[in-house]
Amino acid sequence: MAVYTDVTDEELEAFLQRYDLGELISFKGIAEGVENSNFLLVTAKAPFILTLYEKRVARGDLPFFLGLIEHLADRGICCPLPVHDRSGAVLGDLAGRPAAIVTFLQGISVRRPKVAQCGLIGAALAKLHLAGAGFGLERPNALSVDGWQTLLMSFAGKADSICAGFGDELALQCDRLQAEWPRNLPQGVIHADLFPDNVFFRDSRVSGIIDFYFACNDALAYDLAICLNAWCFEPDLSFNITKGKALLEAYSGVRFLTADEIVALPILARGAALRFLLTRSYDWLHTPANALVRPKDPQEYRRKLKFHLTVRSTADYGLSI
Amino acid sequence: MAVYTDVTDEELEAFLQRYDLGELISFKGIAEGVENSNFLLVTAKAPFILTLYEKRVARGDLPFFLGLIEHLADRGICCPLPVHDRSGAVLGDLAGRPAAIVTFLQGISVRRPKVAQCGLIGAALAKLHLAGAGFGLERPNALSVDGWQTLLMSFAGKADSICAGFGDELALQCDRLQAEWPRNLPQGVIHADLFPDNVFFRDSRVSGIIDFYFACNDALAYDLAICLNAWCFEPDLSFNITKGKALLEAYSGVRFLTADEIVALPILARGAALRFLLTRSYDWLHTPANALVRPKDPQEYRRKLKFHLTVRSTADYGLSI
Repeated sequence: MAVYTDVTDEELEAFLQRYDLGELISFKGIAEGVENSNFLLVTAKAPFILTLYEKRVARGDLPFFLGLIEHLADRGICCPLPVHDRSGAVLGDLAGRPAAIVTFLQGISVRRPKVAQCGLIGAALAKLHLAGAGFGLERPNALSVDGWQTLLMSFAGKADSICAGFGDELALQCDRLQAEWPRNLPQGVIHADLFPDNVFFRDSRVSGIIDFYFACNDALAYDLAICLNAWCFEPDLSFNITKGKALLEAYSGVRFLTADEIVALPILARGAALRFLLTRSYDWLHTPANALVRPKDPQEYRRKLKFHLTVRSTADYGLSI
Repeated sequence: MAVYTDVTDEELEAFLQRYDLGELISFKGIAEGVENSNFLLVTAKAPFILTLYEKRVARGDLPFFLGLIEHLADRGICCPLPVHDRSGAVLGDLAGRPAAIVTFLQGISVRRPKVAQCGLIGAALAKLHLAGAGFGLERPNALSVDGWQTLLMSFAGKADSICAGFGDELALQCDRLQAEWPRNLPQGVIHADLFPDNVFFRDSRVSGIIDFYFACNDALAYDLAICLNAWCFEPDLSFNITKGKALLEAYSGVRFLTADEIVALPILARGAALRFLLTRSYDWLHTPANALVRPKDPQEYRRKLKFHLTVRSTADYGLSI
């Protein structure tokens, strides 16, 4: 959570002159987002979010991300809608960074999701998957099974500084998943990072889904596996099967899960846990001590991965099959 | 700029039940304030700011700060108005910290104040000084001349790590100011930290003055000296006499400056520069490398202090005398 890039009043004024948003009323940095700088921008028309894309987001991917949320918003998904400037562009430059303005979404993200909220997010994810159909751009998932080995190689020599034997443990799991990974599941656009802090609730419904900067094309059920990891574990890292059941049943009530997807879910859940374990381990080892953002402890996903290794079938996640 | 304390949804919900603010619509950490954690809290009634007071703010001082802004807001100063809970209290507890809700102020803070804005802030400061009269609580200024020697002693041994001879330079300036400091100037409640990031402008007027957490009783003209330092230097650290003239004339157009105050201003300006030089040096030497907030470079105020040492009279700041 941070603002990485300062924006001067002159720069902001010049940038906003390209838009038709009315008088500027308020402008405040938001302590959210670990990849980009976000600002609450209130104008006479409405509140908006202004995002400056920092270096971890590839400029070439921005048309995919911004095009996707526009595609989804047009189809009724409650994600931010990019604001077009007078020339029709949704992407500009501000303070030396690519920048975009999107609509502000009401609602509160929850720290500890309740069972009902796991159900709501399951249904919302399925709707998002259905709405993604027909989106014209493609972005391969660089953080799926074929990228894990490369990612692990980049820090394997230092992995044991996190805990003894950790490098070997990760290599074994990478190898196993590489061999077992299902390759013929239904594909589509996935969010790929749908953690509770990227979802707003209001009035017992999902009122906002944000932060599409990992979105890509991949197996739809892999997105569901990411949500199982992100939404259905308790603070003590035990799996809550009631939450798993709520999530999976609500998802499958909106989008039919194929038999292959149901069979594959334990492998996908292991893969999703490994993906976050690898990126968190990398960040843990590479974040400078004076960084504005503290890296997340990799141990959380190590324990989630261990749970998935005990799972025999998707029934263990709560789905009646 | 940071949020130091996390607030869970359960904690927030319980806290808000004490208030009559309607449904919670949005809650976001704000990347502002180096002392406290601030959140934008939008309810069905209005937007508010929720502040959690971190350890650098003494709990015992909070009734002074919150009472003062209520006193000032009641007298037409555009500062935040504390919101009372149903029991009438303005101070509560949230996530283990003292916490308060205040009204949200519109407007934009400027990075590089223009001449006209220096005039606006001069008049606003004078109005604030007049409005502070009659406030019932007192808080001595721990960061005025009598506190500087103690503050310097706390890091004198390490001062030369900032630059060679820095410890001696600071000691000399402390001694000189201790001897020359004017003790009989008109006293009152001062803001004591009125930097551009604590002021909002809208429609060519001051629309908000925030962050009263250094407010105290001291010489009113010392507050003006702090503003001279904070508002009238250019990015290259040259003094802009046009801005000084705008600030001082606008101030004295609202509150009459006594002859003693006018004579004392160069000494007060030196003192104000030394005060921020000392606290920034302390922070520079004591902020851990992994802190969420990067300390400000003390050299800025060292160069401002050097400028004030060349000043012969208040005429050099632009006030016709």
